[in-house]
Amino acid sequence: MSPARLETFADGVFAIAATLLILNVEVPELGEHSLAHELVRLWPAYVGYAVSFLTIGIIWVNHHTVLRQLRGVDRIFLFINVIFLLCIAFIPFPTRLLATYVRTGDGRAAAVAYGVTLTATAIFFNLMWRYAIGDGGRLLRSDADRREVDGITRSYRPGVPMYAGATVVGIFQAEIAAALFAAIALFYVASSSFFGRDEVVP
Amino acid sequence: MSPARLETFADGVFAIAATLLILNVEVPELGEHSLAHELVRLWPAYVGYAVSFLTIGIIWVNHHTVLRQLRGVDRIFLFINVIFLLCIAFIPFPTRLLATYVRTGDGRAAAVAYGVTLTATAIFFNLMWRYAIGDGGRLLRSDADRREVDGITRSYRPGVPMYAGATVVGIFQAEIAAALFAAIALFYVASSSFFGRDEVVP
Amino acid sequence: MSPARLETFADGVFAIAATLLILNVEVPELGEHSLAHELVRLWPAYVGYAVSFLTIGIIWVNHHTVLRQLRGVDRIFLFINVIFLLCIAFIPFPTRLLATYVRTGDGRAAAVAYGVTLTATAIFFNLMWRYAIGDGGRLLRSDADRREVDGITRSYRPGVPMYAGATVVGIFQAEIAAALFAAIALFYVASSSFFGRDEVVP
Amino acid sequence: MSPARLETFADGVFAIAATLLILNVEVPELGEHSLAHELVRLWPAYVGYAVSFLTIGIIWVNHHTVLRQLRGVDRIFLFINVIFLLCIAFIPFPTRLLATYVRTGDGRAAAVAYGVTLTATAIFFNLMWRYAIGDGGRLLRSDADRREVDGITRSYRPGVPMYAGATVVGIFQAEIAAALFAAIALFYVASSSFFGRDEVVP
Repeated sequence: MSPARLETFADGVFAIAATLLILNVEVPELGEHSLAHELVRLWPAYVGYAVSFLTIGIIWVNHHTVLRQLRGVDRIFLFINVIFLLCIAFIPFPTRLLATYVRTGDGRAAAVAYGVTLTATAIFFNLMWRYAIGDGGRLLRSDADRREVDGITRSYRPGVPMYAGATVVGIFQAEIAAALFAAIALFYVASSSFFGRDEVVP
Repeated sequence: MSPARLETFADGVFAIAATLLILNVEVPELGEHSLAHELVRLWPAYVGYAVSFLTIGIIWVNHHTVLRQLRGVDRIFLFINVIFLLCIAFIPFPTRLLATYVRTGDGRAAAVAYGVTLTATAIFFNLMWRYAIGDGGRLLRSDADRREVDGITRSYRPGVPMYAGATVVGIFQAEIAAALFAAIALFYVASSSFFGRDEVVP
Repeated sequence: MSPARLETFADGVFAIAATLLILNVEVPELGEHSLAHELVRLWPAYVGYAVSFLTIGIIWVNHHTVLRQLRGVDRIFLFINVIFLLCIAFIPFPTRLLATYVRTGDGRAAAVAYGVTLTATAIFFNLMWRYAIGDGGRLLRSDADRREVDGITRSYRPGVPMYAGATVVGIFQAEIAAALFAAIALFYVASSSFFGRDEVVP
Repeated sequence: MSPARLETFADGVFAIAATLLILNVEVPELGEHSLAHELVRLWPAYVGYAVSFLTIGIIWVNHHTVLRQLRGVDRIFLFINVIFLLCIAFIPFPTRLLATYVRTGDGRAAAVAYGVTLTATAIFFNLMWRYAIGDGGRLLRSDADRREVDGITRSYRPGVPMYAGATVVGIFQAEIAAALFAAIALFYVASSSFFGRDEVVP
């Protein structure tokens, strides 16, 4: 199967998982407070929506960077991808957990659930890349640039420890962990926009 | 990354956000009134569905007009797009707010929420275009027609002030603001159908 | 814009609208009856799911037949398509109405809602085709076969009267109307499978 | 119609059906127990999500294997596909049934519902393949390798009896049937990863 067919399926899962996040933001039912008041109180749901949407967007960009280096895919690579996409499609659930419970006494369980999901996503993403470049470049295009490949490997290295670290923080303090999840997303946007600025691919 | 790959992901988000709007139209539970009566009473939900679907459809058409002018995309452009799509995927939420509350005392908060979302969408859409044409046509195709590019720039100019204006109206009167949101969508359909009539792209 | 881009967006809406139909089939909560008993009682939901999925599938096949005849699309054609897709994405709502109320005293309102939606879909589908072939073949490919074009026109003719007729029946009797909606779908599958049997497009 | 157009629609249904599975995992409301406790208790929902996602992923891989052998599709093949996709899009419903009821006295009805859905999916998948290769290779590419075609036929043979067998087990014991559904998925991943290891398609 060509990388193109995998891209169609993967892009579908990315787009749907990101768009389904909006179902986590529920229209409030009004009691004694006004709608304006309830909409302000919903802010953790908006932040959760934005952080998870941005995170999925970043992973989507990186997934294409990986596929662009490949000459083809085999079945093991496909199944690593299916499990990786299984993690991506799971993200709306812990996002809702965290938005619902972050400011309560149960926030830490929600932060750990979010962190475990993102850590697993990062692990399978790295596994996918390691498998592709393993065994002397098993799936790499023959014209793949060694320097670029090494650069990609380096840039994916911090993902797992950063998410695992934020998850450990979540065991003790939910709100700081949530802030770290947002910071990781912003870090990726900032760093890749900065470093990748000149690249214009036709 | 080529514009084609961005199109696949963006088209996915457009299609899903538009189609999810139907989840806002809920099957009524019957009390003392008949189903026919309840279905008639649901009319703000139908109007909200139609206006938001049409609005997303218009933005989808315009998004392709933009991408057709580009020779490639860089990471900054990609991340502006991710944030723009984050706004698009958010639209089902204020649509439901407005359909639920437009005729109540809380309608103004709902109208402002709808307006803020659409204004933000228009801002990021313009930012995307400005970035692409900035710096002497950073991402433009070498054969892009200057007159056409200027025409696009002109046609996107009214979006932000129109939505911002309707939002300000929403602070005072929800139903007039809602009518303005519908009028903006119809204005775009009418004007672009009128001006773009002869263009047949193979 | 090329027909290919429209196809991506339209295929997205078709696929999502069809797949969202499953959200209409809800897991029953158990009272005094067993799950087996409740699952059997859900049969109108299964039938509704199957008929609407099949109907959307048929329209998807026909939509491609149309696009295959075109050399390009203009903005009026695009906006007719957006409104046509707005009807497609609406189908899950009356499907749920009909499955919920078909066997109650409110079944007729549900049948009429379903029928009006499908009639409107058929009207915009025909409008789309009429616009494409109007004015001496406005959007037709130069090598389009006149006989095939006439055959398509003929095959789309019965859609609106059939759905409008079933809707009128729905004003008086819900279950017969529902059976007619199923019969129309089966009629299309049978007739096109029969007549189109030999066509193998590479 | 070319296989490519069918792939776009089918990939959409696969991706959406798989991603919608996450809506089956609901954020728990807290009573006397902590969120951590409730999240642990949700494990059947996670397992159901993973097994069904993996199963859909496997079928997606196999669907492409089929389409890659074809020179084109006719209308009968298309409608077999629509009914096959109707089964795929149905999977989220019995997944939720099974996750909700597997450990209760109603688990057997849920296991049978899951098994019937997967058996029907396997039947239509085989029907699709049999139709394509029937009549001396009705839809096969002229350069299709006879040995590969026979290998595909052999590899699809166990699907229906395995799922039908697990369904029969479900009549008597829900949890064993559920374990069998998971085992079938893992069997497919393991066997195809093992046998298909060397294949790198450009």
